[in-house]
Amino acid sequence: MRDKQFYMHHALELARLTIGQTRPNPSVGAVVVKDGIVVGTGTHMTPGEPHAEVFALEQAGEHAKDAEIFVTLEPCAHYGKTPPCAKAIIDSGIKKVYVATLDPNPEVAGKGVEWIRSEGIDVEVGLLEDEAQEINNMFFYYMKQRKPYITLKTAVSLDGKMTANSGDSKWITSESSRLDVHLNRHRHDAILVGSETVLRDDPLLTTRLPHGGKNPTRIVLDTHLSIPLHAKLLQNQDAKTIVVCGKHADTNKEDDIKAFEHTQVWRLDQERVELSSLVTQLADEQLMSLYVEGGSTIHSAFIQERLFNEIHLYMAPKLIGGSMSKAFYNQFGFDEVSESIRVEFKTIEPIGDDIKIIAKPQTEEI
Amino acid sequence: MRDKQFYMHHALELARLTIGQTRPNPSVGAVVVKDGIVVGTGTHMTPGEPHAEVFALEQAGEHAKDAEIFVTLEPCAHYGKTPPCAKAIIDSGIKKVYVATLDPNPEVAGKGVEWIRSEGIDVEVGLLEDEAQEINNMFFYYMKQRKPYITLKTAVSLDGKMTANSGDSKWITSESSRLDVHLNRHRHDAILVGSETVLRDDPLLTTRLPHGGKNPTRIVLDTHLSIPLHAKLLQNQDAKTIVVCGKHADTNKEDDIKAFEHTQVWRLDQERVELSSLVTQLADEQLMSLYVEGGSTIHSAFIQERLFNEIHLYMAPKLIGGSMSKAFYNQFGFDEVSESIRVEFKTIEPIGDDIKIIAKPQTEEI
Repeated sequence: MRDKQFYMHHALELARLTIGQTRPNPSVGAVVVKDGIVVGTGTHMTPGEPHAEVFALEQAGEHAKDAEIFVTLEPCAHYGKTPPCAKAIIDSGIKKVYVATLDPNPEVAGKGVEWIRSEGIDVEVGLLEDEAQEINNMFFYYMKQRKPYITLKTAVSLDGKMTANSGDSKWITSESSRLDVHLNRHRHDAILVGSETVLRDDPLLTTRLPHGGKNPTRIVLDTHLSIPLHAKLLQNQDAKTIVVCGKHADTNKEDDIKAFEHTQVWRLDQERVELSSLVTQLADEQLMSLYVEGGSTIHSAFIQERLFNEIHLYMAPKLIGGSMSKAFYNQFGFDEVSESIRVEFKTIEPIGDDIKIIAKPQTEEI
Repeated sequence: MRDKQFYMHHALELARLTIGQTRPNPSVGAVVVKDGIVVGTGTHMTPGEPHAEVFALEQAGEHAKDAEIFVTLEPCAHYGKTPPCAKAIIDSGIKKVYVATLDPNPEVAGKGVEWIRSEGIDVEVGLLEDEAQEINNMFFYYMKQRKPYITLKTAVSLDGKMTANSGDSKWITSESSRLDVHLNRHRHDAILVGSETVLRDDPLLTTRLPHGGKNPTRIVLDTHLSIPLHAKLLQNQDAKTIVVCGKHADTNKEDDIKAFEHTQVWRLDQERVELSSLVTQLADEQLMSLYVEGGSTIHSAFIQERLFNEIHLYMAPKLIGGSMSKAFYNQFGFDEVSESIRVEFKTIEPIGDDIKIIAKPQTEEI
């Protein structure tokens, strides 16, 4: 039935189409309907370009008068890179506005709706709200908590190993899983690895999808600035790259790294990088989401400090075995099972020959 | 529709009802139908009692004349604990026999069908054959390969650990998973653990289900006969218990263990127990299916020697971590991922708060 859910559902589909590409903005879709006829659709595509409502209203033109608009996120009320959408809606002659969810930023939440209502226009808030929040879940988390949304990603065998005895890890999972990893890179603001991973695997850490994709900012945790200048992520300039070091790291090496145009060095005020300081700095730099690709030293630290919102585990149908092979959380840990960190399984799905499991912290713990 | 599949489906359901309780016999169901009316149903219940066809024909009585019988396994043709079912069918006046699958024992396969046909009765073989073989998959495997069907069972955390740093493993998984383990004990002829497990956990290894269940034969691999005489599985006489040792194990200790009425000691002709010898002896003793509960030393040996038909992995939503905690396959193993043992995922399902994953070897390997 072509009820209000029908139109909002399609506005949400327009938003989903752009997940990852609007960063640091949220993904938003809008549909304008007049007398049962769709007269305009729009989606926000990339920062600096018009918002979803503006595209939809432009398409609608004169038909916007006395029409209804369905928009997945509260229209903005402030003058930024683009004029406020609330004003555009008011000026268009729209008679009713459906908003799936309010803006999560506590400083502006409700202001757009308030302005539109003050002009006598009817506004309904909350239509398909859960779906709308899920589409921008990392953006919502950041706006409310002022902390990046952290996803730990690991690939293991059936017996829980992310490396073989020699440290080799290429490739545990299938092509399908690896493509899914690239999709997640596209969706995150930043990607993080430890210096060990750079020294051993020399990864590029860019997004390589069949139709391209957006590169996250690359972050390397490297207390002593030990990664070589010929590392691919220093030589390749496709993504901004931040090397994070401790306060005693070599200053000449810092200069050498900073000589690359796409790089920064963050020298923290600690001997060893403290994750809580790092996370604060990421938040200050508006990096809203962090995709942590390991290795096990890094994962162990994030888990032990309860710094994660999701764990993405790709499990391959292989048995690696061995006493030198590594699990992804192979440090710290607990003496008794009863002390262990509780999570819950969010989704379990086959992916190619592998299984993908998403777990998240139990609410009471994190 | 009440077609032939409909009746055979119900015969299969009768067989499923008794999975585990007919050991060492297979589970079999039978349905007798006359002019669209069910006139008899039967299931084999336990060794020594009548076969499914006999119960169904007894119920049918005079109505069996010119009726059809649906039976999930080929009627037997030999005089054993009960008279041959082929003869019972012939004598009953049945005019048509549907058999889901032939007997897997190469020495008798086809003989029952042949006998019935020789009396001019029409026999159709192969109706829902795959389902019928799956119900008795361990029985079929043993009869064809003359080797026990081996299932490795392990319970791990999301990070792949079956113990915490101290060796503690109680309890990683939930009550639901543990009940499922008891159901699998009920379904297997034998259950196997290593002496380390007995020394650390002192398990009873019986089947404890809400409505009871059949106990498997308990087997302990104990090269030096190191388990104490006060171990629960020696003190408790609810299940036959076999302790397997190497050729140099202490003979006094052997006598002490054999003093318990329910126990045997198998002294193998090797310093350390060789699994291939053990498996041969299990087969000779008609133990058709083996449920291996670990610990990791045992699992590692079975996996490394490719001695498994299924792996049952129960994964709990917990993070245990640590460098001393154990994976279930934590010995031997491979230096490179490319050398690892390939398996395939057969089923993945939520069970309580946990996940149960069943993997099996890729056909080309085992």
